Amino acid sequence: MRSVSVIGIGETKMGRLSGRFLKDLITEAGNKAIEDANIQKEMIQALYMGNFNASYWSTQSHMGPLAAETLGLGTIPTIRTEGACASGSLAFREGLIAVGAGVYDIVLVGGVEKMTHRATETITTGLASAADCELEANMGATFPSLFALIANRYFHEYSNIRKEMAMAAVQNHENALLNPNAQMQKKITVEDVYKGFPVASPLTVFDCSLITDGAAFVVLAATDVAQKLGLTRSVKVIGSAQASSALTLAGKKTITSFESTLRAADAAYKQAGIKPKDVDLAEVHDCFTITQIINTEDLGFFPKGQGGKALAEGKTARDGEIPINTSGGLKAKGHPIGATGLSQIYEVVTQIRGEAGDRQIKKADIGLTQNLGGTAATCVINIFSGR
Amino acid sequence: MRSVSVIGIGETKMGRLSGRFLKDLITEAGNKAIEDANIQKEMIQALYMGNFNASYWSTQSHMGPLAAETLGLGTIPTIRTEGACASGSLAFREGLIAVGAGVYDIVLVGGVEKMTHRATETITTGLASAADCELEANMGATFPSLFALIANRYFHEYSNIRKEMAMAAVQNHENALLNPNAQMQKKITVEDVYKGFPVASPLTVFDCSLITDGAAFVVLAATDVAQKLGLTRSVKVIGSAQASSALTLAGKKTITSFESTLRAADAAYKQAGIKPKDVDLAEVHDCFTITQIINTEDLGFFPKGQGGKALAEGKTARDGEIPINTSGGLKAKGHPIGATGLSQIYEVVTQIRGEAGDRQIKKADIGLTQNLGGTAATCVINIFSGR
Repeated sequence: MRSVSVIGIGETKMGRLSGRFLKDLITEAGNKAIEDANIQKEMIQALYMGNFNASYWSTQSHMGPLAAETLGLGTIPTIRTEGACASGSLAFREGLIAVGAGVYDIVLVGGVEKMTHRATETITTGLASAADCELEANMGATFPSLFALIANRYFHEYSNIRKEMAMAAVQNHENALLNPNAQMQKKITVEDVYKGFPVASPLTVFDCSLITDGAAFVVLAATDVAQKLGLTRSVKVIGSAQASSALTLAGKKTITSFESTLRAADAAYKQAGIKPKDVDLAEVHDCFTITQIINTEDLGFFPKGQGGKALAEGKTARDGEIPINTSGGLKAKGHPIGATGLSQIYEVVTQIRGEAGDRQIKKADIGLTQNLGGTAATCVINIFSGR
Repeated sequence: MRSVSVIGIGETKMGRLSGRFLKDLITEAGNKAIEDANIQKEMIQALYMGNFNASYWSTQSHMGPLAAETLGLGTIPTIRTEGACASGSLAFREGLIAVGAGVYDIVLVGGVEKMTHRATETITTGLASAADCELEANMGATFPSLFALIANRYFHEYSNIRKEMAMAAVQNHENALLNPNAQMQKKITVEDVYKGFPVASPLTVFDCSLITDGAAFVVLAATDVAQKLGLTRSVKVIGSAQASSALTLAGKKTITSFESTLRAADAAYKQAGIKPKDVDLAEVHDCFTITQIINTEDLGFFPKGQGGKALAEGKTARDGEIPINTSGGLKAKGHPIGATGLSQIYEVVTQIRGEAGDRQIKKADIGLTQNLGGTAATCVINIFSGR
């Protein structure tokens, strides 16, 4: 496999984008990424589209050719990938493999989701389809309920980190205040989290990621092709791995650590030739505050059971030893499901390039993205280097 | 890219499989393919799942880990691909690229669809989501109506092949009588087709593919790995290509020839180093009888405008010069959408191996599958060789 680089990025503002259609979001973010890459559209040889559930929320499947036609990309091969909330990262990884294999030199990878136009019940039913419908969703299990179980089990096995979970939400909201694309622009306190509308104990509405419309795109190129084109802002992908675990909570060996993350992280670190301590920043999957804390442990940033304490000590803050979710994360930047993995990459590449403005961290040479689907049934990890 | 082979195949019987769930179909076809490959489950390194619309018909997304858990495949990477009726072929192609690239040595590729449990209106709405929802589906356009427009335009540009279309249905039904997995086991006549319930002029119900539940799986391995394992029944993939065209009918340059097929065929033939005349048999996408005839022209088997005549002359029969849809095709074998592309591969590999029983054709060294999504917005072509 040859080396592959990100040569362009683009995303929409995230939020409740009333009156904007899937095609609008694709057009805006796709064209931004192509413009950012400074290439001609004709140079794009394939399109990989991540989308979770337009089939249900908009009765729109077949997103690949829809996006290709919308962006004026001609008859290039195109495909939609789906792996729940990791759909965008899967598109990225398939594009990466194809460029790495030499099937294509330059590909466009996009993710999009439009969900706020539906009633809450329809949104929830659509989201629950990422769980096992027969054994979980149809029995009434929603994702907040499943992650509440995970949180309570964590309290049982390690320690009660209710306060630290609230602090994760507070920190993500603080970061989002500096991100112009973030959905949520509101400072909150730990007390606000406690007093939030109860969703599934111990989670309140402030422990949950947002319902978001949005799109994010990246352009990938073989590193040598990028160099020949003189694209000096390109950022190398130095590690990429994926693993799964059982779709059902009942099928997992443990629910306070995600086996899919452990395996994908191990493989991605080996491929990149680095250790967790070498990572300068990470966008991790914070669908719920408990998830963020578990992820920072599974990724090897902190010992098991110590993720909450580390966060409370400021280690994951923008000026901490490993800044987490400088974008604001799914909690405050927003969670446009099919676009989330690519929006994570957007943030990491922006930081590595030193273009993150007010939220720019000091040292951002190596960045990591971790994107989960379902209750960590899917995990995709990518590692990027600006060197 | 290194050479890749199909080392195992499995499929369910196709049809209205009442009382059988997605997991049942996955279990049956997946295990059949693994058993057929004569490998241990532990040797499978990734799973690619094609599924079109369980998100809508069963509120079940995230099919990758669902299938991995169901089949007991552990924590291997898994992904769902979607490209309407070509979803299964896209899964195959992504698996092929990953093995070709050396990311994995052995992968399982599956496709599944369960749709007959829903009301006709819900099935139709789900199917229509493969068109552009904003410009076509929501305006009332269904796939029969879109392909009826294509047929009428063909009559205008070339000749009225109403009779030859009916003969395509008759031929596919004849082939299906010899396929134990086929949904339809009923001989029909041209008169039956004419008298069928009118769907969208000139199409009657007998011009339309079936509503089908079913699953099909294949095991792919690097050819050298297959050889080391002594798997002598393996069948090489010698060409694979994909192209798209506009999702909308309005966006296409022509609708009587599919640009996606022309481009994918050109690339696949070049890769395989063969000409259309070298193909011994083909499974082509016959969502409607007009589609089959157009496809045999676009694939270069017959000159443009001559596909109907060639069929009427028996050239596409089992003993003709290029047997088409020996399985019975989507028309009579059935069209389990996400599984269709893999069921096509099942048939071609079975014929190449000489294991097709009563429907075995004489010379089956090189076989081709062509799988479309939407109104040919997606086309995937694969070429196989037993040599």
